[in-house]
Amino acid sequence: MTAVNRQLVLNSRPKGMLAPGDLQLKETAVPGLQDGQALARVKYLSIDPTMRIWMAADSYLPAVAIGEVMRSFGFAEIVESRHPDYRKGDRVTGFTGLQDYVAVELASQAFQKVPKIPFVSDTVFLGLLGINGLTAFFGMEMAAPKKGETMVVSAAAGATGSIVGQIGKIRGCRVVGIAGTDDKCNWLSKDLGFDAAINYKHRDWKGKLAAAVPDGIDIDFENVGGEIMQTVLGLMNLHGRVVVCGLISGYNKQDPGMMSLGTVILKRLRVEGFLLLDYVSRFMEAATQLGQWKMFGKIKDRETIVEGLEKTPDAINMLFTGANTGKLIVKI
Amino acid sequence: MTAVNRQLVLNSRPKGMLAPGDLQLKETAVPGLQDGQALARVKYLSIDPTMRIWMAADSYLPAVAIGEVMRSFGFAEIVESRHPDYRKGDRVTGFTGLQDYVAVELASQAFQKVPKIPFVSDTVFLGLLGINGLTAFFGMEMAAPKKGETMVVSAAAGATGSIVGQIGKIRGCRVVGIAGTDDKCNWLSKDLGFDAAINYKHRDWKGKLAAAVPDGIDIDFENVGGEIMQTVLGLMNLHGRVVVCGLISGYNKQDPGMMSLGTVILKRLRVEGFLLLDYVSRFMEAATQLGQWKMFGKIKDRETIVEGLEKTPDAINMLFTGANTGKLIVKI
Repeated sequence: MTAVNRQLVLNSRPKGMLAPGDLQLKETAVPGLQDGQALARVKYLSIDPTMRIWMAADSYLPAVAIGEVMRSFGFAEIVESRHPDYRKGDRVTGFTGLQDYVAVELASQAFQKVPKIPFVSDTVFLGLLGINGLTAFFGMEMAAPKKGETMVVSAAAGATGSIVGQIGKIRGCRVVGIAGTDDKCNWLSKDLGFDAAINYKHRDWKGKLAAAVPDGIDIDFENVGGEIMQTVLGLMNLHGRVVVCGLISGYNKQDPGMMSLGTVILKRLRVEGFLLLDYVSRFMEAATQLGQWKMFGKIKDRETIVEGLEKTPDAINMLFTGANTGKLIVKI
Repeated sequence: MTAVNRQLVLNSRPKGMLAPGDLQLKETAVPGLQDGQALARVKYLSIDPTMRIWMAADSYLPAVAIGEVMRSFGFAEIVESRHPDYRKGDRVTGFTGLQDYVAVELASQAFQKVPKIPFVSDTVFLGLLGINGLTAFFGMEMAAPKKGETMVVSAAAGATGSIVGQIGKIRGCRVVGIAGTDDKCNWLSKDLGFDAAINYKHRDWKGKLAAAVPDGIDIDFENVGGEIMQTVLGLMNLHGRVVVCGLISGYNKQDPGMMSLGTVILKRLRVEGFLLLDYVSRFMEAATQLGQWKMFGKIKDRETIVEGLEKTPDAINMLFTGANTGKLIVKI
């Protein structure tokens, strides 16, 4: 065990994309353990759009303070323990932060143990069985799709969107995804069974989207906001539902996503905000169902893995340029 | 019976408030009747914010065409009939338009007969038992208030808002109204039983509103939009509900009301658009309940009456300056 703990510390609040120096690499000593603590070696970091929110300002969680280790989810393994609940070799997920080592406190609720599943990569606990799968599961519960309805999901080739769409298919919907490359669109329609996938970087994508939803749109599972959302809303049916799960197009900007309330009245839409933290008590229920779907081949997942803690700032920016397909992970 | 039918015709689409000439008075002959038609004398016109929408552009109904009689609800009495369902003296409400006389066609669904109720003014069929009471009734069904919750209603001294608030009290809510004069606020809190009423024209109204909702806001019954709505949203509780019924602050402007989706996620709000036309098949059910509430003194209504068809343009503008309390009616 090395005695050095590398950490990425928030040095300045980014304007737009992360610039060099917004996150600064710092070396500290690996903390010595006291009774009731365990030490975990971080192996995988979950790279999520919401990190950009945590860097900017207080929101559903307090903003990360300047000088603090940047908050993140991650997967870690216990390497030393004076904690009654953990033994060396135990595997945990939780708020590891962007660093090599994290201390697990006695009273902390920040981590939970995860099993070793044969033939399944550990990273599944960050994606399909982590925040993305759980978000997709409970977000689709909010959407309450009915058989035969048409659902559109934006950022469809992302970690959450790709699972949302597959749950939509399981529920019997016509599912149309919106993504930013032809490769992603091919993955969605050929591998994941989406009924159509539209590349919003094509000039005529709005016409193609309209053609892909001949009966209009009943559900917008919204991960993006901005112009993409407005285009989808223009095709919504009366009494359509909008699950506002993410607004990634706005996270790098000052202005939050805006929505026309005139449209809400005109189409009698039901627009609902979604946050995963409201469902903590039901995570196991959802993970069990998601795991079963994966086992039976009903849901496929994919990962983009970047190697090296020091590459994390670039990895975060990849979310906003659309360079990843499926779950984006940094392997330390 | 005079042989002249005075009509207010849409001559130009208003920019902002109605200007002289936007509605033009025109005299035509009272139409002769064919078999299957009846002729009704219009007695009262219902003056509603939505008329401003009908003047502007296609929405949930087509825009009124330039040169057409301006659309409105009204109360009328049959003066001559060659129609199997109507006799002289029958009383109807429906789309009379801004004119002295209207022909009732055989196949038309535009009118329905209303009874003569002892001790009750005919105008009740335009307000409490008309579009405002019905809007309040079904809008509150959408809001689904629970006992002990806090509800805020904007344009609270208007025809719809005043009934919404009283239904909120019947349902056991803490009800706070927002209105634009101290007189209106006194009426709401002293006569109608609102728990508080805030005059948004006072400098410190935002602080007063916050003080009036010590447990936060669970329901926003929104009739106004804009800054008033934003202030209310800032005080919403997690998982609050917003019924978007009207956006009167925006009807005179080009821009429709906008809403921050960041707030929708952060507070996990459920925002739903309301339109009365979705509930046509249940109007009698609602009117029965509203009539009962009125009879038992649980709901009080109030009217502002303007005399003379030619005063209608001024009356419409009164809605936007807040010059009316309760239902605004033009008596012809």
